[in-house]
Amino acid sequence: MTRTRFHQELDELKHRILAMAGMAEQAIDLAVQAYSHRDPALCQRVLNNEDAINRAERDVDEFAIDLLAMQQPMAVDLRFILAVIKINADLERVGDQAVNIVQRVMNMIDLPAYELPVDIPAMASRVRAMVRDALRSFIEGDTELARHVLEADDDVDRINKEAFATLALFMQAKPDGAVQALDALSIARNLERVADHATNIAEDVIFWVRGADVRHGAGQRLAGS
Amino acid sequence: MTRTRFHQELDELKHRILAMAGMAEQAIDLAVQAYSHRDPALCQRVLNNEDAINRAERDVDEFAIDLLAMQQPMAVDLRFILAVIKINADLERVGDQAVNIVQRVMNMIDLPAYELPVDIPAMASRVRAMVRDALRSFIEGDTELARHVLEADDDVDRINKEAFATLALFMQAKPDGAVQALDALSIARNLERVADHATNIAEDVIFWVRGADVRHGAGQRLAGS
Repeated sequence: MTRTRFHQELDELKHRILAMAGMAEQAIDLAVQAYSHRDPALCQRVLNNEDAINRAERDVDEFAIDLLAMQQPMAVDLRFILAVIKINADLERVGDQAVNIVQRVMNMIDLPAYELPVDIPAMASRVRAMVRDALRSFIEGDTELARHVLEADDDVDRINKEAFATLALFMQAKPDGAVQALDALSIARNLERVADHATNIAEDVIFWVRGADVRHGAGQRLAGS
Repeated sequence: MTRTRFHQELDELKHRILAMAGMAEQAIDLAVQAYSHRDPALCQRVLNNEDAINRAERDVDEFAIDLLAMQQPMAVDLRFILAVIKINADLERVGDQAVNIVQRVMNMIDLPAYELPVDIPAMASRVRAMVRDALRSFIEGDTELARHVLEADDDVDRINKEAFATLALFMQAKPDGAVQALDALSIARNLERVADHATNIAEDVIFWVRGADVRHGAGQRLAGS
């Protein structure tokens, strides 16, 4: 394989991981729409799409491993391919969260609707922006944007903690709505996990671009240096 | 680097990932003991250990990447090193779950103790066995044991669903204990996530040993073939 051919293959790998990201993001969008509209047909679409996401993950992995085996890349290309393998695993788990969300939504649809004190679509929109920014930081090699994703994760954790406190009060005031409140709380947790995956992706981007490891808070120090 | 030297390095990598696993498992043990004894000192120990786990993750990653870069291994060795990188990420996230558990325990300690209808230590012992078996399947290249871990995950999901239903009823009957019940539910969820990581590890072991990808249910087909 010539170097030029190798870089075409790297571009193809980037293209495939972006397609994978698109599928994972769409799954979350559909799951949150299913929640908003209490729509069992949308739930079913998310469940039907799971296999396709799982197949896409395997394909990206095999493509990446073949590149490693055949080309034996050094330094920055090696780290790029390893970043793809890690990002790929996170995107597949984003898809899993969409499935977890619609399982809760299907439970809620069978119960009376309550006005719950938690804004799931607003939380979802924050989390979606994190996933989008994490992937954009990857395409553009933009470590500033990746660091922005790390900061946004703290906001999502705070929103989730507030949801926990508000829904606990709601359950004490309206025990009849406890199951619905627990379902909403589960969905908020699932969205928080999506945000965690976006954070993992942003860390992998920084790892790839800088060749330095900024995981576990060291990013703060780099940002200030 | 001679082939013999390379295999010594692979053994060293195996040794390091096992040490990493030991740290993650100990963190879960301590967190569950902190829950059982409502012990803030044990909570603090888990929080103090988090940095060490994060450092160990980085060290294993760098060691694995150096091996890839310097030795450019083929086929089964390449897949082994990639499996280590993935297992390493899962073990670090097991450590994160221990931290999440003790944060809930610290919240519970500040509130009146309730007799809650959920057996966290029993659930933890199932989950710990999964992590232990997943790592043992890795050391011994034992795909049967790895498949056993995949089956155990279904049990843990069922236990978690039962905990959800039982604690929802408890909250309806005793709204005053809703916050404590929510904390216990969070801990059950965190343990379920540890089980998910054990499952990921078992999948990586099968991927490494067989060179075949049995993720996402294909393992069932292989087992029957």
